[in-house]
Amino acid sequence: MEKYIKDPIYGNIKVESKLIDNPYFQRLKHIIQNGMAYMIFPSMRHTRFEHSLGTYYIASKMIDRIEGNIDSDFKEIIKKLALYHDIGHFPFSHTFEFALDVLKYLNDDKYKEIIGLTEYKGQLHKFHEMMGIKILKDGLGEKEVADLMENVYTSSNPLDDKIKIAKLIVNSDLDADRLDYLQRDSYYSGAKFGIIDPERIIITMTITPKGYIFPPKAIDDLEHFFLARFHMYSSVYNHPVIEIYNRVMSYFIAFAIHKGLLKIPSNLEEIKTFTDEQVFLALINAKNDNELSHFYFSLVERRKYKRAVLQGSEARTLHKYLTEDEDAKEFYEYILGYKGKVVIGSTELKTSIDNIQIKEKLGKYEYLNNLKEESSVVKPPERFRVHIGVYDDNVAKEISEYFSKNFSITLDFRNLESNP
Amino acid sequence: MEKYIKDPIYGNIKVESKLIDNPYFQRLKHIIQNGMAYMIFPSMRHTRFEHSLGTYYIASKMIDRIEGNIDSDFKEIIKKLALYHDIGHFPFSHTFEFALDVLKYLNDDKYKEIIGLTEYKGQLHKFHEMMGIKILKDGLGEKEVADLMENVYTSSNPLDDKIKIAKLIVNSDLDADRLDYLQRDSYYSGAKFGIIDPERIIITMTITPKGYIFPPKAIDDLEHFFLARFHMYSSVYNHPVIEIYNRVMSYFIAFAIHKGLLKIPSNLEEIKTFTDEQVFLALINAKNDNELSHFYFSLVERRKYKRAVLQGSEARTLHKYLTEDEDAKEFYEYILGYKGKVVIGSTELKTSIDNIQIKEKLGKYEYLNNLKEESSVVKPPERFRVHIGVYDDNVAKEISEYFSKNFSITLDFRNLESNP
Amino acid sequence: MEKYIKDPIYGNIKVESKLIDNPYFQRLKHIIQNGMAYMIFPSMRHTRFEHSLGTYYIASKMIDRIEGNIDSDFKEIIKKLALYHDIGHFPFSHTFEFALDVLKYLNDDKYKEIIGLTEYKGQLHKFHEMMGIKILKDGLGEKEVADLMENVYTSSNPLDDKIKIAKLIVNSDLDADRLDYLQRDSYYSGAKFGIIDPERIIITMTITPKGYIFPPKAIDDLEHFFLARFHMYSSVYNHPVIEIYNRVMSYFIAFAIHKGLLKIPSNLEEIKTFTDEQVFLALINAKNDNELSHFYFSLVERRKYKRAVLQGSEARTLHKYLTEDEDAKEFYEYILGYKGKVVIGSTELKTSIDNIQIKEKLGKYEYLNNLKEESSVVKPPERFRVHIGVYDDNVAKEISEYFSKNFSITLDFRNLESNP
Amino acid sequence: MEKYIKDPIYGNIKVESKLIDNPYFQRLKHIIQNGMAYMIFPSMRHTRFEHSLGTYYIASKMIDRIEGNIDSDFKEIIKKLALYHDIGHFPFSHTFEFALDVLKYLNDDKYKEIIGLTEYKGQLHKFHEMMGIKILKDGLGEKEVADLMENVYTSSNPLDDKIKIAKLIVNSDLDADRLDYLQRDSYYSGAKFGIIDPERIIITMTITPKGYIFPPKAIDDLEHFFLARFHMYSSVYNHPVIEIYNRVMSYFIAFAIHKGLLKIPSNLEEIKTFTDEQVFLALINAKNDNELSHFYFSLVERRKYKRAVLQGSEARTLHKYLTEDEDAKEFYEYILGYKGKVVIGSTELKTSIDNIQIKEKLGKYEYLNNLKEESSVVKPPERFRVHIGVYDDNVAKEISEYFSKNFSITLDFRNLESNP
Repeated sequence: MEKYIKDPIYGNIKVESKLIDNPYFQRLKHIIQNGMAYMIFPSMRHTRFEHSLGTYYIASKMIDRIEGNIDSDFKEIIKKLALYHDIGHFPFSHTFEFALDVLKYLNDDKYKEIIGLTEYKGQLHKFHEMMGIKILKDGLGEKEVADLMENVYTSSNPLDDKIKIAKLIVNSDLDADRLDYLQRDSYYSGAKFGIIDPERIIITMTITPKGYIFPPKAIDDLEHFFLARFHMYSSVYNHPVIEIYNRVMSYFIAFAIHKGLLKIPSNLEEIKTFTDEQVFLALINAKNDNELSHFYFSLVERRKYKRAVLQGSEARTLHKYLTEDEDAKEFYEYILGYKGKVVIGSTELKTSIDNIQIKEKLGKYEYLNNLKEESSVVKPPERFRVHIGVYDDNVAKEISEYFSKNFSITLDFRNLESNP
Repeated sequence: MEKYIKDPIYGNIKVESKLIDNPYFQRLKHIIQNGMAYMIFPSMRHTRFEHSLGTYYIASKMIDRIEGNIDSDFKEIIKKLALYHDIGHFPFSHTFEFALDVLKYLNDDKYKEIIGLTEYKGQLHKFHEMMGIKILKDGLGEKEVADLMENVYTSSNPLDDKIKIAKLIVNSDLDADRLDYLQRDSYYSGAKFGIIDPERIIITMTITPKGYIFPPKAIDDLEHFFLARFHMYSSVYNHPVIEIYNRVMSYFIAFAIHKGLLKIPSNLEEIKTFTDEQVFLALINAKNDNELSHFYFSLVERRKYKRAVLQGSEARTLHKYLTEDEDAKEFYEYILGYKGKVVIGSTELKTSIDNIQIKEKLGKYEYLNNLKEESSVVKPPERFRVHIGVYDDNVAKEISEYFSKNFSITLDFRNLESNP
Repeated sequence: MEKYIKDPIYGNIKVESKLIDNPYFQRLKHIIQNGMAYMIFPSMRHTRFEHSLGTYYIASKMIDRIEGNIDSDFKEIIKKLALYHDIGHFPFSHTFEFALDVLKYLNDDKYKEIIGLTEYKGQLHKFHEMMGIKILKDGLGEKEVADLMENVYTSSNPLDDKIKIAKLIVNSDLDADRLDYLQRDSYYSGAKFGIIDPERIIITMTITPKGYIFPPKAIDDLEHFFLARFHMYSSVYNHPVIEIYNRVMSYFIAFAIHKGLLKIPSNLEEIKTFTDEQVFLALINAKNDNELSHFYFSLVERRKYKRAVLQGSEARTLHKYLTEDEDAKEFYEYILGYKGKVVIGSTELKTSIDNIQIKEKLGKYEYLNNLKEESSVVKPPERFRVHIGVYDDNVAKEISEYFSKNFSITLDFRNLESNP
Repeated sequence: MEKYIKDPIYGNIKVESKLIDNPYFQRLKHIIQNGMAYMIFPSMRHTRFEHSLGTYYIASKMIDRIEGNIDSDFKEIIKKLALYHDIGHFPFSHTFEFALDVLKYLNDDKYKEIIGLTEYKGQLHKFHEMMGIKILKDGLGEKEVADLMENVYTSSNPLDDKIKIAKLIVNSDLDADRLDYLQRDSYYSGAKFGIIDPERIIITMTITPKGYIFPPKAIDDLEHFFLARFHMYSSVYNHPVIEIYNRVMSYFIAFAIHKGLLKIPSNLEEIKTFTDEQVFLALINAKNDNELSHFYFSLVERRKYKRAVLQGSEARTLHKYLTEDEDAKEFYEYILGYKGKVVIGSTELKTSIDNIQIKEKLGKYEYLNNLKEESSVVKPPERFRVHIGVYDDNVAKEISEYFSKNFSITLDFRNLESNP
């Protein structure tokens, strides 16, 4: 049975009941879209569920812009993949993936156990995507969608034209996912940065195995889109205070798994109920754990961390150091000795603009220009930020000394929510 | 320190940090505004926290419309009360209060234990309001606000002019609470019914001990407001399917308390973390409880109840029967024997319109007309609905027979989400 | 060539260039949608052009809800009629039609000359609709659309099923016209009354020769629609001050035609440029006309009329008197003696709700209920208002005496924009 | 008397009646905000009146962000100036100013006559601003506002602190004018580019004689604002097709003045009624003028010009040539020989970002950085476009030859509304 689901962004989304009436998809109602962003934008309480429906809606419109020989069955599979693209997210979405990065240093066995859930054989990409493939295959019995998901998320340059097209719609710099979440996250947050015009972008696009093709008049819309994305990252998703809360939460998740306070699922059945609530309950239980109670006081009782931020070239250099595993191991082990009373997060704000062609006419000739190589087009800048949060003044002092001694960097700690 | 909190409805809400940085108010981030409404309107994930800030914002504007001698300290207390008016809500807001109604029949001791938490001496009014008074007094040490709250929520006709005015702003048919939630719930749901113009209503009002006074030109706005409210109740808050989900959840809460699956807080410290998550975890644990697993399958695995609805005079009569305690006790005991495989909810859609005066001029005379007595003003109708949900066809059959035999009413059960 | 036209209500409206690239349709860019409403809501500057495109857009959606055997060619004709339904409007839209009512008393020859432009043989209905038929036939050569327009606007109960269905879409109580203008006029005015959800109404409707058929769950949406309409009329379209301005303008148009200050078109070619601007220029020229300069001072220099309003039973009685031609002739002649220094307008706010059926199920039977006969449905009230505007205190005095003497009615004149 | 005017952008704008109840300000209801933009965005029918009220509203908020010793009387004068900043606009706003540029070549006497109306003694700046000063002084008797307007619009670096601050609010890169029109023009057009968050910008700004001072966290908002502005210019105000229509209209105005078809006002009294309507009527009269009828057919009957556009370095070079008077005189005389059957417009899309400081902290020191010199801030690019419109293929051929021979530029003419 088809039904209409009311959505404040698109009005009414039409979808087959059977696609959404299963516990795996329903679980997304309990996975918040933007981690801890609601600590600063309290109205951002929307979940992966609404976003998944929105992505499905946008993908359904994009399907009509495909040029070439794609049969309607495959189009349905693309739409299903759009609907299910986030089905593998664990509690607090990307915050959980940060937690995995921490867990790797803290407890490699547990880390491997979680990764093992995905049963993915190749090199691991994003955790939630690999998890999604597993759920699609073994939970929902959607083998074709699972296979497409694997192709679309693990290959950066697929050979097959159908896969290329599916990848444009579901996993590209201008995919249905991004076209949905920019507006949606703007709507819920109240921040205006992400208000774009997806309909106009879709109307002017052609989707081909060579990438998206647009007429020159679409350039303003494309610039607008990529800048909107940049500003949503800079001001909302990676808001300095939200960064700290996300890191505190991800350190908590890692420690809670490490110490058995948060039980990780061991099979698909348990994944059905592995939701934000589980993490929140672990947090409440941490109140009486000598080593971890500071997480409770920070996240529930609002005992605020102090924070320092690095920007510019210092941040760039430190970011590179922190994300090149081997060198940074010693540093992370030092940090983890503080059991989450020190958290560190490094962000690279970077906008990739691939597979977008502008079709120009020169007299009787037509040719394609790659958008990202067009020097006249405004593109978002690249920015680096490293955020360091500390639980109290003692820790602040020790960390400042460590940074000064080891990195020759002076940290300037402030109250969490004072103006940056 | 004053700060601005981004809000999608009003833009930016200015508030003192110290008013909101405490675990009791922060707890509201984990109390969903509209119970189970998100089962039908998935984007309604907003919480009592955002609504409380919004109510504070609206109250701050209304303060300027007071005519008479109210000192600025008392105005601040009114604003605080607006901010804290929902601080006593328990998980899933009003759904918890339905659960208390069920618990009364199921386990009077537990019921009294919960009520006892409020330490309220007089006749109990709404649970969350009495609980709020307790939290304000003993949790936040806001005695003056607590006292005002008690005056405003327990007396229907206060004598004191200051209390009268505070009551108009915080607990009346046109209070800051309603002016906020109609728009807010429309915004998140995508339903258009509640889009009103509070600024225009506020601009035209005068707040006096005699009630609100409006010029005749405000009548359209007032009609619009009361009809908006009616339609939000009819189509959203009391949407037939949402009603069933709310009842299933409230029966679950009652049974979970009864059987110890949901531990109720025994003091203020435990209330800090008594949130939606606790109920959700109890629900997951119910999966393995022989008697209660149907709640898990219904609410988590989306195994759908069937439902019947009564309207018109049948519903009116049954509603009166069900809400007159003594007569209905036997009926409820029968229903509760099904341990939540049968749920019943009765609704009276009724709009009260009190304390609103229209100031008319007649030549050189001015006089006040009571809005609710103006026959030329369109007012929302009164409607009754009784919803009955059953877990499976066997139960449906038995309940149909019971209704037929005892009430001479024929029930027509349908699938949960088919068109009413 | 199909093109997309940007519209703030629907995003992008797709339409064939050739349908809109003609001077008759383009002329609508110079016919303001809501007469003089911009004197109170300054942002209501939108025209019949945007509204016509919007009506076309809505009709295109409604077409899909037709149940029955309507071929696609006829559907295209219905869509064209939706696009062109206002093509016959003269300057200031309905305000011009009020002017015709005045002109009839003032100068019957001129009146007949204008009416004669329509070449309509039967009994005249609304002027602009008859004019539209003429333009469609002889200006645009759209004979089929013209014939359908005649059928749809001149017959209240067409026999033919196709005509019945077209009439529902283009000229009924729930037609594309109303579904567009309520939202659109809300959007431009900033008044919230007209914000409805046409998509939801369209999704739930079936269009049949028996009328619209809706499921019971649509009742709230239908109530909302009809009340929205009522409030837009009461607070915007018939706003007391706007009423005065519309009457002043319509009296001006009548006198300007009468005295040759405004040249009326004598053929289709001249109609192409018969727009708001012509009237405005006549108004400027009136500045130096001894008899008509008060119109200039009122409408351009903002020298404000005084006004009195009658409501309730007085208004009802007077309204009936004024709209029954023969009796009122003497009265109008008296009023016209003031050459527009007295204007009178009477309004009946009345909402007709025809051809809407609710399909109920009773066990295995289905039956249709007529919405307007459902006593449980809230319907807008009927209201009467008579507005009288006077240019100065002398005139006010004389008119008051006339009303007192002839109608035993006391008029209470106030400044134009003071609170009603 | 204070009154509230309904505005779809800000809700309700409070203003003293006496400020707006005069024919000079009311005239703005008949001066369209964006010239011929409604030919492409039909809903852009809003006028300088609404925008002026909106600018007043924004300025009223900005007033509160002034740091320093500005007395409240002067603040009121700033607010009045914000309200009246566009009071000198002639029909079709900036399109009239383009017409003056053409008239200078066509008929220097008439040009000087119009300029003479302003009675401005110094070097002429923008026409409408000089005209505004005259109207304020001699029409409205607002000498102080007139003096401030002169100071604010004719001096790029005023010495006086009060003037500096007034200039920031009323005539700077981040003034109330721009903060209003970006959103407003987005709202009416439906284009999303200009949706910014002025409240947040205002909340974070401090207005000082040194310029605006912002904290670092405002950088994203400022980037967003300047990019929004750029995109609104690129996609709306200077939309290639709108450019052609604006040029055709401005050539028409120039020729109509030259040939006496459009009578220019000779004193303030005549300015009261010198509105868009006058131009439109001249256009209708042009229908029967042998030399100018092509304007009528183009703008009224929608007989479309062809157009060519130059971009990149060709456009840059040509733009410089065209805007350096002396060299280009010969070229313009050649073009004007076509009596408007050839129109040319050159645009420099350039965003100036002056007087905006970011206050950084470095340990215990604070220092100010100039926003426009911050290399890490994304700034809009500079773009040049030259648009050439021709009435028919013959003219296209001749102009192509002229450009080829004199500028070695190949023109590629297309239909007016085909995709660029």
